[in-house]
Amino acid sequence: MTTFGESHGKAIGCVLDGVPAGLEIDEAFIQSELDRRRPGKNAYATARKEPDSVEILSGVFEGKSTGTPIAMVIFNTNQKSKDYGNIKDLFRPGHADFTYWEKYGIRDYRGGGRSSARETAARVAAGAVAKLMLREIGMKVESGIFKIGDVEARKYDFDYARNSEIFALDSSMEQAQKDTVLRAKEAHDSIGGAALVRATGVPVGLGEPIYYKLDAVLAEAMMGINAVKGVEIGEGIHSAELLGSENNDEMTHEGFLSHHAGGILGGISSGDTLDIKVYFKPTPSIFKPMQTLDIHGAEVTCELKGRHDPCVAIRGSVVAEAMAALVLADMLLLNMGRKMEQVRRAYAQ
Amino acid sequence: MTTFGESHGKAIGCVLDGVPAGLEIDEAFIQSELDRRRPGKNAYATARKEPDSVEILSGVFEGKSTGTPIAMVIFNTNQKSKDYGNIKDLFRPGHADFTYWEKYGIRDYRGGGRSSARETAARVAAGAVAKLMLREIGMKVESGIFKIGDVEARKYDFDYARNSEIFALDSSMEQAQKDTVLRAKEAHDSIGGAALVRATGVPVGLGEPIYYKLDAVLAEAMMGINAVKGVEIGEGIHSAELLGSENNDEMTHEGFLSHHAGGILGGISSGDTLDIKVYFKPTPSIFKPMQTLDIHGAEVTCELKGRHDPCVAIRGSVVAEAMAALVLADMLLLNMGRKMEQVRRAYAQ
Amino acid sequence: MTTFGESHGKAIGCVLDGVPAGLEIDEAFIQSELDRRRPGKNAYATARKEPDSVEILSGVFEGKSTGTPIAMVIFNTNQKSKDYGNIKDLFRPGHADFTYWEKYGIRDYRGGGRSSARETAARVAAGAVAKLMLREIGMKVESGIFKIGDVEARKYDFDYARNSEIFALDSSMEQAQKDTVLRAKEAHDSIGGAALVRATGVPVGLGEPIYYKLDAVLAEAMMGINAVKGVEIGEGIHSAELLGSENNDEMTHEGFLSHHAGGILGGISSGDTLDIKVYFKPTPSIFKPMQTLDIHGAEVTCELKGRHDPCVAIRGSVVAEAMAALVLADMLLLNMGRKMEQVRRAYAQ
Amino acid sequence: MTTFGESHGKAIGCVLDGVPAGLEIDEAFIQSELDRRRPGKNAYATARKEPDSVEILSGVFEGKSTGTPIAMVIFNTNQKSKDYGNIKDLFRPGHADFTYWEKYGIRDYRGGGRSSARETAARVAAGAVAKLMLREIGMKVESGIFKIGDVEARKYDFDYARNSEIFALDSSMEQAQKDTVLRAKEAHDSIGGAALVRATGVPVGLGEPIYYKLDAVLAEAMMGINAVKGVEIGEGIHSAELLGSENNDEMTHEGFLSHHAGGILGGISSGDTLDIKVYFKPTPSIFKPMQTLDIHGAEVTCELKGRHDPCVAIRGSVVAEAMAALVLADMLLLNMGRKMEQVRRAYAQ
Repeated sequence: MTTFGESHGKAIGCVLDGVPAGLEIDEAFIQSELDRRRPGKNAYATARKEPDSVEILSGVFEGKSTGTPIAMVIFNTNQKSKDYGNIKDLFRPGHADFTYWEKYGIRDYRGGGRSSARETAARVAAGAVAKLMLREIGMKVESGIFKIGDVEARKYDFDYARNSEIFALDSSMEQAQKDTVLRAKEAHDSIGGAALVRATGVPVGLGEPIYYKLDAVLAEAMMGINAVKGVEIGEGIHSAELLGSENNDEMTHEGFLSHHAGGILGGISSGDTLDIKVYFKPTPSIFKPMQTLDIHGAEVTCELKGRHDPCVAIRGSVVAEAMAALVLADMLLLNMGRKMEQVRRAYAQ
Repeated sequence: MTTFGESHGKAIGCVLDGVPAGLEIDEAFIQSELDRRRPGKNAYATARKEPDSVEILSGVFEGKSTGTPIAMVIFNTNQKSKDYGNIKDLFRPGHADFTYWEKYGIRDYRGGGRSSARETAARVAAGAVAKLMLREIGMKVESGIFKIGDVEARKYDFDYARNSEIFALDSSMEQAQKDTVLRAKEAHDSIGGAALVRATGVPVGLGEPIYYKLDAVLAEAMMGINAVKGVEIGEGIHSAELLGSENNDEMTHEGFLSHHAGGILGGISSGDTLDIKVYFKPTPSIFKPMQTLDIHGAEVTCELKGRHDPCVAIRGSVVAEAMAALVLADMLLLNMGRKMEQVRRAYAQ
Repeated sequence: MTTFGESHGKAIGCVLDGVPAGLEIDEAFIQSELDRRRPGKNAYATARKEPDSVEILSGVFEGKSTGTPIAMVIFNTNQKSKDYGNIKDLFRPGHADFTYWEKYGIRDYRGGGRSSARETAARVAAGAVAKLMLREIGMKVESGIFKIGDVEARKYDFDYARNSEIFALDSSMEQAQKDTVLRAKEAHDSIGGAALVRATGVPVGLGEPIYYKLDAVLAEAMMGINAVKGVEIGEGIHSAELLGSENNDEMTHEGFLSHHAGGILGGISSGDTLDIKVYFKPTPSIFKPMQTLDIHGAEVTCELKGRHDPCVAIRGSVVAEAMAALVLADMLLLNMGRKMEQVRRAYAQ
Repeated sequence: MTTFGESHGKAIGCVLDGVPAGLEIDEAFIQSELDRRRPGKNAYATARKEPDSVEILSGVFEGKSTGTPIAMVIFNTNQKSKDYGNIKDLFRPGHADFTYWEKYGIRDYRGGGRSSARETAARVAAGAVAKLMLREIGMKVESGIFKIGDVEARKYDFDYARNSEIFALDSSMEQAQKDTVLRAKEAHDSIGGAALVRATGVPVGLGEPIYYKLDAVLAEAMMGINAVKGVEIGEGIHSAELLGSENNDEMTHEGFLSHHAGGILGGISSGDTLDIKVYFKPTPSIFKPMQTLDIHGAEVTCELKGRHDPCVAIRGSVVAEAMAALVLADMLLLNMGRKMEQVRRAYAQ
């Protein structure tokens, strides 16, 4: 996958190469995935309306993938660039303004430019194609919010999450989580949160040893999402407190007796359910005055306007799900030539 | 970097491509880095003696790098393969035995083969070369143990850690951490732990937006180390509990006023100190009976012999440090062509 | 560079990643390069009109590159898909119809789909950006036709070629070359040809030893252009007939005394003029009946209609020039970190 | 594949990643392939004796590949470094001395260092493993010399070539070709030559459209071999002189009626025999005085001593064959996931 585009440029999009030929490309499904990520739907996300209508430019013929690159474009239609005039020359704390400026000596200050979360819409579109492919071999990738601020889910119900306004995994915690978001919003502030991504039906054997381990590549994909600061697989950081006899998943004919590993052993999928936890920092764009520098080196006060997510984790969970689907689809294709027996069979006449 | 080798094969090693020409290659330093990771030195690591003597096969001429691939080999000398005879056909719980078997239909059962932590010696050798290069431009990468079981450091002293038998960052917690390891060991069990990797002197601008973000690539490198189950940058998972106004690092002429971001903004280094936390599960090889399956599908009891680390995090911290150095060196070279002005200057006559 | 698109889909385009920030992006120049490749201008190319109007979707802000991916799209406007109805089920000899069908089990039969030469418009747009960058450091890439059928140029005048309808390098041979094209066209046939690409101002040192040699990567770029069947560097295949004493380029204070090497030694640019010869087969689409198979395996006669280039080499030379510019730009950036001294200087404070 | 090593360093070698598990690794075969490339056997190659004994360090367990990286090392034993003392400071015409010096500011002057043809021994070892894999699915890669100086083969007999001292494809031309080599050698000079690589049993569908075309990747592999200056696929440069009606390969139930395409259409294998022609310049190391510069910029006369191949094409043909095998093996694995139907079947339970 290659993505391109800035939040306030003409368009964002992606090019997906390597999609096998003959996959039915359900455009309505792709659009419905984008709609899940789309802002402007309720009080828990930015009021910015981005219709996010996806257009497929190539790689699909008569409803099926042809094996050639699939390019998808989402044209930007709701660009209020003047909203950003007052931050043109300063570095918003917690934002990439400073690092882009130092790295490139130029930046598109409107809406964060390339570092904007808007770019993730293209990933969701790509992830939707990956999910169509995974579905055909019985794999499912789901996600939901298990934590906002310090309000944490006690149970994980992915069906419930799908229809929750904040993708809450635990209905009994949902209201408290919503309240946490609104409280931050009313204080002109923002709040962190965390998502759980789960994949089921994963075949044993995905992931390559050492260089392209499934957990390593998932960690890269997750940490590469805007605002993510922590990633856990299975038992995660808690495993540092456990004894080996507590943490090892014993095996019987019924499968694994516990699930500390999170579905990955030695960087390779074990066939067990895959669990990834992704932690998002609070949106750096808040409406309280903050101390900062401008591009000329002067100390100034940053007072943001515009429209921003009070809790970037919510929409971020949809992105994390999409990225996990992309990683798994990639690994699936890679794994096909790992046994000589498979190669022989594939080319037998 | 490419590594190769199995724990009980003839040798392990790595090939480092892209090292700039004219770097002084201090072999004694490389060996001293390997010695830090080397087991058999005290009660807190496996009693296995691996002299781990590194030999440079190419890419160095008269003590300097030539710009061509540097190949380094460590021959295996202390292979007690018979130690592993009793696990030849069964899957050790928590190990990659099962996933390798399913993926490849064949496995080198001796000492974990390719999935053995022994492979990480090659990474430490490569990391040492990276550190030599970083040193020349004022960068330093250090590490230490901040947590074993539930005993956690309250202060971080990297100079102390360097000479501690367990690389403890906090001298006042060291004995309690050592006791935790020994208690697990005496119970024929193992224990988890966590390391902190810190880089200082990092220039602003390392890391590429979207595809090759510094935090994402670090997360991949860390999660790819054996036994790692969680990775945090800066405030990490705790950032999910914070408000934006708490988490944002304000800027003044003196620099950042706080350090929640951990030195990375938008995937690009901010020039601030870089902090990465890495969480290791307990070594899966313990000496208590565990339920498992063998390759024929029968339920059997696994009773391990051999010599194993009671706490893989300890030596793991040296590996994490090496991997961080490799990532930073890579990013440093990549960053050189990011401004047209740099390109013009580099080729001006 | 990533390209996408089929000749009869909605659009073709490319995403260029890694362009340094701060490069002036002259859109008129990019369009003028596309116009050179554009068909429908005279009798020596297909009568198909493709306005080929390029639109930049991202990566440029206020006329300058920002360092983020530059996406360019060319919408397809003149698609006569019904022209292709009669070849829907058969394999055109000399075309990729058969191989795509076998590989993917599906194909976009309209105009060759992905294998159409139309995809090369995207490469020309990308090449134009590369040329803008090369220009800034004094490099120039030019091309022209030196051979059509057996009519071969005796001198190489790139200024003349730029304005010739067939990009002829030798004005004295141009008419004979044009006649050769028209003769083939009138006979409902096509004819092969060959282009020379020349780069001047190339700094010494571009190209990596062994894995990413300048000549190897140029050969890949050239052989990857539609219809190319042969590539030569410098003396090329003729060098197989020479003695070492004839072929070696001796050196003096004035530079190389001869130019057999074509500007590359050991895969690395020598600073001398770079010469690449690219040989194109005749367009496979001819209007004479040909024997072939259809997708059901029946033997049928293929009688093509539609509009096709009588000599694909002519427009191909513009593509070859663009690809050479892309390769050189890539190598230029890669080369910046090859000496430790450069690295030190780049990060000196 | 990654290779490392210089001609006069401790060792050369390669690391092969991605070899499917369960392939029988016939070490005697690998050694026999190396022996074909090995110099010092007769008057037509350098008198330098390089036993070229290969040692497998990893990735093979009980005679079979395990799916993990296969590292192979060939230790250098016959290094007469003093032979090179007199060229320490000067640039041998036609050699990479000058470009390495300019690029890196340091060079291993002994025997060309990294740019030495010795590095190709590692490729031959890797190619032998690829051939073992190709063999299992009915593919065969062969090579031979069809041209030395201006003496060209009229027929291609690969069985004959295998046992010829100069790998001659045409027994009736062999003596004239040998004489051409010896004549050059006696005149203290060298001579160019050309090899034909042929692959049979190639399945339809190998090669990716646009980015990783089979012909493009083969061209890169071939042009990347030391001394190669020209590459042709099928009809090659001659196709530039043909009409479409002459060059198109018509198809019937019996297959293709002609073989101009050389087994590749649109960058994808057609199932027909694959023909690649590779042209080598004469060895630049000759024993006649040549004008050159030294590293201080002074004009000097270069008078070489040492032992050199009078015709580098001869041993080069074995290398070209190995590289073709590596490319085909790679493409074979890549092609396995190109149809959704294959993916479904591979993961069906």
